[in-house]
Amino acid sequence: MADTITVPRGLAGVVVTDTTIGHVRGHEGFYHYRQYSAIDLAERRTLEDVWALLIDGGLPAEPKALHQEIAALRHIPPAVAAALPDIAAASASQDPMGGLRAALAVAGLAAGARPLYDTPPAQRRAQAMALCALTPSLLAALYRLRAGLAPIEARDDLSHAANYLYMITGEEPTETHARAVERYLISTVDHGFNASTFTARVVASTGADLYACIGAALGALSGPLHGGAPSRALDTLDAIGSIDRADAWLRRRILDGERIMGFGHPIYRTEDPRSRMLKGIAQSLGGPLVDLAVAVEERVLSLLTELKPGRELHTNVEYYAGVVMHLCGLPREMFTPTFATSRVIGWCANVLEQAEDTKIIRPDSRYVGPPPPQPVP
Amino acid sequence: MADTITVPRGLAGVVVTDTTIGHVRGHEGFYHYRQYSAIDLAERRTLEDVWALLIDGGLPAEPKALHQEIAALRHIPPAVAAALPDIAAASASQDPMGGLRAALAVAGLAAGARPLYDTPPAQRRAQAMALCALTPSLLAALYRLRAGLAPIEARDDLSHAANYLYMITGEEPTETHARAVERYLISTVDHGFNASTFTARVVASTGADLYACIGAALGALSGPLHGGAPSRALDTLDAIGSIDRADAWLRRRILDGERIMGFGHPIYRTEDPRSRMLKGIAQSLGGPLVDLAVAVEERVLSLLTELKPGRELHTNVEYYAGVVMHLCGLPREMFTPTFATSRVIGWCANVLEQAEDTKIIRPDSRYVGPPPPQPVP
Repeated sequence: MADTITVPRGLAGVVVTDTTIGHVRGHEGFYHYRQYSAIDLAERRTLEDVWALLIDGGLPAEPKALHQEIAALRHIPPAVAAALPDIAAASASQDPMGGLRAALAVAGLAAGARPLYDTPPAQRRAQAMALCALTPSLLAALYRLRAGLAPIEARDDLSHAANYLYMITGEEPTETHARAVERYLISTVDHGFNASTFTARVVASTGADLYACIGAALGALSGPLHGGAPSRALDTLDAIGSIDRADAWLRRRILDGERIMGFGHPIYRTEDPRSRMLKGIAQSLGGPLVDLAVAVEERVLSLLTELKPGRELHTNVEYYAGVVMHLCGLPREMFTPTFATSRVIGWCANVLEQAEDTKIIRPDSRYVGPPPPQPVP
Repeated sequence: MADTITVPRGLAGVVVTDTTIGHVRGHEGFYHYRQYSAIDLAERRTLEDVWALLIDGGLPAEPKALHQEIAALRHIPPAVAAALPDIAAASASQDPMGGLRAALAVAGLAAGARPLYDTPPAQRRAQAMALCALTPSLLAALYRLRAGLAPIEARDDLSHAANYLYMITGEEPTETHARAVERYLISTVDHGFNASTFTARVVASTGADLYACIGAALGALSGPLHGGAPSRALDTLDAIGSIDRADAWLRRRILDGERIMGFGHPIYRTEDPRSRMLKGIAQSLGGPLVDLAVAVEERVLSLLTELKPGRELHTNVEYYAGVVMHLCGLPREMFTPTFATSRVIGWCANVLEQAEDTKIIRPDSRYVGPPPPQPVP
């Protein structure tokens, strides 16, 4: 065994790879996709445009052709559709992330996915486009099957975001709602080297097929320490119930040192730029839930100043994301899965980049048990 | 962003965690599970005993009760069985690893798997036992469904290894074959901190459920740089065909610098201890394929001495593993999946250990693209 290298717990700060996909500057409250601010992209471009930026490396020369390419890939292949009722039946009482993992594994089988190293780059890209386009359709179909409703066929005339809402609710969304969700999706396509993105790249480094990489990343995203909390922030607002109850509810928890869902991020030391944008979107949608969310945010910040001086805590992406998704008609159980519909694009970009490398990611551990070899009884 | 730390490519030698599960001493040609030599365990104990050693931390006090516990968990639950025909139909022309990922995701839904951090330790262990017991049944059922045959119900009176062979072939294996496969399975339960074990622990560090962790590890194992090669070593023996053709076939490839499948390992600098044991098992089974394999191994070593002096290259676990599995009646497409039936036990032990930690594994990347922010067009 070669000499081992000791690094911070959780590999914090350990550089695994070079990337041109994007990065997070936590101290500046800034993150970017390629050379563009992610927030600027969310303000000015479509999800499909940003999708091309991540997968192809640049904004599309012909956005209309790209939108058509993506729309055509949204329809669930018959061999995959056949498996969905049984997956939905097995998952009646479950989080939809496991159902998506099962459905995407079947989609990989139906697509005849081969190891990355045996797949030419053009075909890898085609697989990535198909996987990303199909993900919302699978989620929506499983959601409706679990609810005892028939899945709704994708509509090619709608934007990717609008079509997703349509496939979930069965109603064409307003332009305001579709655009609100689209901006949320753009802002969550990628976010540095988080646990799920890293997972996708570790699996890609073995040469496994694209569906295996994305399935693994989905597993990581389903963990509560990673992608599992947008609905819990909304649950907190429900528990508080009204603005006049906020102070007492929060004061007790802050004094007890309890975590307030929707606040704090491991990377940002400033306001989360996604949170700032989503707050603006929530305020433009308006209503009592938004008023409550804004009031609770203000109370948390001023109670912290009063009770824990010196401790800075800002809302994270989950806080207003939950409010926005709720106001746009998405059921709470679909918050993390909705996050997954955009993050698959970032994962695929990372897998395509990792596939250019041929070095397996294989760290080490330190054995600290009783010394071997003991005689086997 | 905190300061970043530069380490060797692929995180080689970087210590991610402390473990009491086991380790590989590459320079000594030695690896162990807990305090015991893995090879000694393969010689002297049953797979079920070693399973308890990994999952429970010690050899079982009551082996018979343990064998019964495992046997009872091998039967496929109806909600999972219902999904298998559609998974098999989608994967008719495919590697079985994707099918197993789909089936295990459905099994996780049916089991109501919850995030690790919301699952008490006793329940985590119960889930791990169930997942490991079920894996061979799912693989065998999907194998037979793909072949147009009816799945075979597990038999509680057979050992885990014998029952696996029985569910694949439909015939009760000889004791010699069952024990040969059992020793192979014991020797591959765990092997230090490889890419799939690491993947399982990264996903576990997000708090995701056990099935998400193991599904991710399966994806990593399906990569050709990791678990995907036992059948290719056998393909090489087929291509050589007979002992008299070995010298010419090998000489050309070694001179061309081509890789010979089944030779070389990233960790071992000596003979792979698994290979040594499997060679002995193969020789005890005997036959022309074994004679060819032994002759080819000798030719490779002596040709290397002649053509590339100073370069040491030994057979790895794959070389004789393929020979043994073939002689015991396992079809070639099931070699990597068979590896998975034992490695799930090691992965589960690692997930249970990781679940005691609460620090997410989240390394970093270095952005090397054009500097942001550029104005968004």
